[in-house]
Amino acid sequence: MQDFYPSRGEKEEIINRVDKTVYSSISAGEYSLDNISRKEYEERGFIVFPNLFTQEETKEMLKELEYMASNTQLAKNEEFIQEPDSNKIRTIFNQHLFSTLFDKISKEPRVLDKVKQLLGSDVYIHHSRINIKPAYKGKSFPWHSDFETWHCEDGLPRCRCLTAWIMLTDNTEFNGPLYVIPKSHKKYVSCKGKTPQNNYKKSLKKQEYGVPSVNAIKEFTKDSQLVGVYGKAGTLVIHDGNTMHGSPDNISPYSRTNAFFVYNSIENKPAKPFAAKTSRADFLCLKDFTPLKSE
Amino acid sequence: MQDFYPSRGEKEEIINRVDKTVYSSISAGEYSLDNISRKEYEERGFIVFPNLFTQEETKEMLKELEYMASNTQLAKNEEFIQEPDSNKIRTIFNQHLFSTLFDKISKEPRVLDKVKQLLGSDVYIHHSRINIKPAYKGKSFPWHSDFETWHCEDGLPRCRCLTAWIMLTDNTEFNGPLYVIPKSHKKYVSCKGKTPQNNYKKSLKKQEYGVPSVNAIKEFTKDSQLVGVYGKAGTLVIHDGNTMHGSPDNISPYSRTNAFFVYNSIENKPAKPFAAKTSRADFLCLKDFTPLKSE
Repeated sequence: MQDFYPSRGEKEEIINRVDKTVYSSISAGEYSLDNISRKEYEERGFIVFPNLFTQEETKEMLKELEYMASNTQLAKNEEFIQEPDSNKIRTIFNQHLFSTLFDKISKEPRVLDKVKQLLGSDVYIHHSRINIKPAYKGKSFPWHSDFETWHCEDGLPRCRCLTAWIMLTDNTEFNGPLYVIPKSHKKYVSCKGKTPQNNYKKSLKKQEYGVPSVNAIKEFTKDSQLVGVYGKAGTLVIHDGNTMHGSPDNISPYSRTNAFFVYNSIENKPAKPFAAKTSRADFLCLKDFTPLKSE
Repeated sequence: MQDFYPSRGEKEEIINRVDKTVYSSISAGEYSLDNISRKEYEERGFIVFPNLFTQEETKEMLKELEYMASNTQLAKNEEFIQEPDSNKIRTIFNQHLFSTLFDKISKEPRVLDKVKQLLGSDVYIHHSRINIKPAYKGKSFPWHSDFETWHCEDGLPRCRCLTAWIMLTDNTEFNGPLYVIPKSHKKYVSCKGKTPQNNYKKSLKKQEYGVPSVNAIKEFTKDSQLVGVYGKAGTLVIHDGNTMHGSPDNISPYSRTNAFFVYNSIENKPAKPFAAKTSRADFLCLKDFTPLKSE
């Protein structure tokens, strides 16, 4: 299979994206994007929908998360990642498989209509995760394109995937929010450095491969200002799989919790990894390609 | 000597400040603060003066800094601190003693008139420093009150000291700026934990003693919102010695450089450390009490 996005080679290079960002202008349901929003997403590589979920809904999700995080049986699954220095849960992968509430949220028409329209096809979930960035000690995450990893290490052939994520707590300039570089999704950083075996075990904690150099990020910010994605709990954000993002540490006294759902087009099923000897763990690259139906 | 600000004990406690914040309303020269600014400083514990220095002046200071940082003879002094992973200079202490330009800046009437008025007496420099928080890898610094350390480890008896600092590069929400908690200077966190011997050698890299708990910071933010101190190069900031502040890491592609000057009232000369067996290094607690005169 042709590799349109080579990476993890001997030198870093910025190349053009070969795929579309918006695959369809046809409505995929009541909650599809209007022309202006679609244009915004296409141009900037991300879009924010404040208060898409009500306070009651986000409270319910937080309660569900608390239940999951305090369930010692559940915590035995490899999808439940603890803090390095305590037994507190920091990340839960595939919350939609462990919780009927989050399963329902993943098929919410307010989300799914938008996702299906943007990807121009039926979609399935590549993986999902809830990240808790704890007050005072939540660590930063370096700049990266998610797609670069999904392509290199999971084998997603084309950039026809995106992340829709819900703020479960307020995301402010102080509590380790996501920073994005508008327009960065139009370029692709072919990163330097061969992927080590079982890289994902380390990269979930601190990504070292698939991380562009400071010069590449400087290049991207030459004609685009960094944007901090701030919002109240209940805000929905959709960002293209290739949008460059990172997040600083959280020294504030408020923790920051977000639920991420990664959607992929069913026409973009994973092949063999393009730049790794073996695939990442199964839970990072789900193989249930059943098209999601709104619920 | 009575200890009005006990700290480093067996438990954390929040007590009241016993000292004034503004010691004089009488003008100390052409560039003193007007009533409104003085009131703002008194109430909030910090004040920002955008563009107090011109672009030409900040460029000159940056040039001087580059010269100092590249001078291998100078770098042999203990005041010149290198990055842990390279020989690049990250901090220079007492730039006013190594550079006539920074010496002149420390006596600039635009700064000194304000400082002398706020402290209500003649002043001298307790220490000064330039901090370079490098792009991409500049580390965060936890919440702390400077005065707590100066009192415990240097022996400054009363809170009659402040820091005036100049942004030598833009400070943005993205490049590891200072966060402050308005009004926090009115309370004092008596911190938990006995000061270890030679604590300063470690604390210059990562402060561990004199750091309030997350609960104390939460308490402070109950009726006060965090503020990020952002500004263009050339901005002057003055914050009270006891204003609680911290800074996140810098994942942006832009480094952040600030020049700090710590002024103390000549009526507040250091005694013996109040909560450490020995004093910190001499360069952190200067003993030249000659009153500064405007230049």
